[in-house]
Amino acid sequence: MGILMETLEAIQPVRRDLEPAVRAHLDQLTKPPRSLGLLEDLAAQYCLITGTDRPVLGQKKIFTFAGDHGVAAEGVSAYPQEVTPQMVRNMLAGGAAINVLARLAGAEAAVVDMGVKDPLEGAPGLIRRKIKFGTANSARGPAMTEDEAVRALETGITLAREAVVAGFDLLGTGDMGIANTTPSSALFAALLPCPVEEITGRGTGIDDAGLVNKVRVIQEILRVNRERLDQPLSTLAAVGGLEIAGIAGLCLGAAAARRPVVVDGFISSAGALAACRLAPAVRDYLYFSHLSEEAGHATFLRLFRVEPLLNLKMRLGEGTGAALAMTLIEAAVRIYNEMATFASAGVSGKE
Amino acid sequence: MGILMETLEAIQPVRRDLEPAVRAHLDQLTKPPRSLGLLEDLAAQYCLITGTDRPVLGQKKIFTFAGDHGVAAEGVSAYPQEVTPQMVRNMLAGGAAINVLARLAGAEAAVVDMGVKDPLEGAPGLIRRKIKFGTANSARGPAMTEDEAVRALETGITLAREAVVAGFDLLGTGDMGIANTTPSSALFAALLPCPVEEITGRGTGIDDAGLVNKVRVIQEILRVNRERLDQPLSTLAAVGGLEIAGIAGLCLGAAAARRPVVVDGFISSAGALAACRLAPAVRDYLYFSHLSEEAGHATFLRLFRVEPLLNLKMRLGEGTGAALAMTLIEAAVRIYNEMATFASAGVSGKE
Repeated sequence: MGILMETLEAIQPVRRDLEPAVRAHLDQLTKPPRSLGLLEDLAAQYCLITGTDRPVLGQKKIFTFAGDHGVAAEGVSAYPQEVTPQMVRNMLAGGAAINVLARLAGAEAAVVDMGVKDPLEGAPGLIRRKIKFGTANSARGPAMTEDEAVRALETGITLAREAVVAGFDLLGTGDMGIANTTPSSALFAALLPCPVEEITGRGTGIDDAGLVNKVRVIQEILRVNRERLDQPLSTLAAVGGLEIAGIAGLCLGAAAARRPVVVDGFISSAGALAACRLAPAVRDYLYFSHLSEEAGHATFLRLFRVEPLLNLKMRLGEGTGAALAMTLIEAAVRIYNEMATFASAGVSGKE
Repeated sequence: MGILMETLEAIQPVRRDLEPAVRAHLDQLTKPPRSLGLLEDLAAQYCLITGTDRPVLGQKKIFTFAGDHGVAAEGVSAYPQEVTPQMVRNMLAGGAAINVLARLAGAEAAVVDMGVKDPLEGAPGLIRRKIKFGTANSARGPAMTEDEAVRALETGITLAREAVVAGFDLLGTGDMGIANTTPSSALFAALLPCPVEEITGRGTGIDDAGLVNKVRVIQEILRVNRERLDQPLSTLAAVGGLEIAGIAGLCLGAAAARRPVVVDGFISSAGALAACRLAPAVRDYLYFSHLSEEAGHATFLRLFRVEPLLNLKMRLGEGTGAALAMTLIEAAVRIYNEMATFASAGVSGKE
């Protein structure tokens, strides 16, 4: 049995049976019950995911998956494709936003070449998992074969597995890939499903005419690949991207190992959605970090019924939202573990 | 001239003239322009406050001001008054939520006795600035004399001055004081102004009957003190609290020293509002950390036209929201200082 099938079968629901004990502990801490709001919910979720009422938060790691997209040829992005390898090198040198925010969060930042259209020679520190030199143009046919999509998913799964073995308890997702809001919108439209217009935004900053073109291109992607949209895996292969499949794999691998994943913004949400369609129980293992300014993200969050932790009007990707949200999750686990109880501190309760 | 008058005269507007240079720098960083949203705004605000386009973020410190309230006798709180000194001791021992979150933010947590109704003997580490053993019952007359309010304001001012001299660049506010949502709501109602019902909530958790009583008590506070509500200082003295005046003083002292203050939730916002009414230019020196679950906080933020950074459904006070928001402000300054530029990283711009 392959890694993907084995992982899908290994994913179990989170430990809901632990919730009463976890909430009872939170209510004993020196604060009015539930007064820490979402921090208490985050701590409880962490306990249920990791299967204990004595949670441990070890190391944190954010994987930024990079890939290129044949559909960039359709003029859907404001930036040229050469920016993908340039930004990969910038990340490896520590100069990108994700590096700054991961350092602040105390998280390791890793960059994975899933399918950059450049050999990326040199590039010390790069995790080399290139499946191919960019996807095919999905407006003309499938972006990937199903075999390629499985290999990309299994790459993400294996990275999650290895990270957990190495002591990373909290994983985060990120993306880098010029034009990748287009395959993300196509995936949302196919997997939610929802109308293309409601899930398509300006990405890195296209103008009004560019947006009209982008919507038309995504509709064409869905039309050309319509016979491949009946299953999550074939949909991911046909209209997705290599880095998006890597993100989906990371979510699957972490859930199978009972570890939470902090999902970044728009592109990462597309990967997370694909993972949830492959294994619905994955959903409870995910923290959705922030509401992206990318127009379609609010649509996804509403239709998928999740509340993001932050709303900072960001639209950068890379894992920047995940890095910021990791600090909130760490705060929640520390509150659970480090606060005094009413009894231990000698504080009176309600009258 | 007294410390208060000297400080009010020293407060200058932030350096709006620096904004073009600051925004130009942000636009040179390796990301689509404005794609880091509020983080970019926070960084710009930090530059304008501290008066430089080369911002420095040194140490961080959160002051939790503690005080008791004579109005607690009117049955406005779910907890007994003895909890104020108990929680002060819990904070000094490191077991309160503020300790956990300040540690995570890398901020020093200080506790200031502004007017706890307990001698707090022993209590190592406590900053002793007690003006009196709790305010008088403001439902029967003024909570403080104007002289007491001035002394409380000057205490906060002096603490801010000393902190800045000691190398603290980012200050945060917090509160501890059983019943202190009542004087806060009274202050908001008088200073915004707004109807009592729109600014009054359940505090640490009173029931429906308790809320009806609390609204009635606040209306009585405003009626009894109606002749003292014509000036900000006399209003603060009549219906406010010693810890609230300390918070207001910290805002004034920081603004006079050109340093930002991260304002916690409901009670801290009341102190911040008093500071802004005493010196309107203070407003631009403040970061409002989060939207509290305390019902009236949304009313204040809407009427005062400020957007909070976080919405985590918290309602604890102590400085817990300020601690979490400090990490966002540190993230913003680090982004400004540590990211590579398009030129330095060799990354292509828009097509």
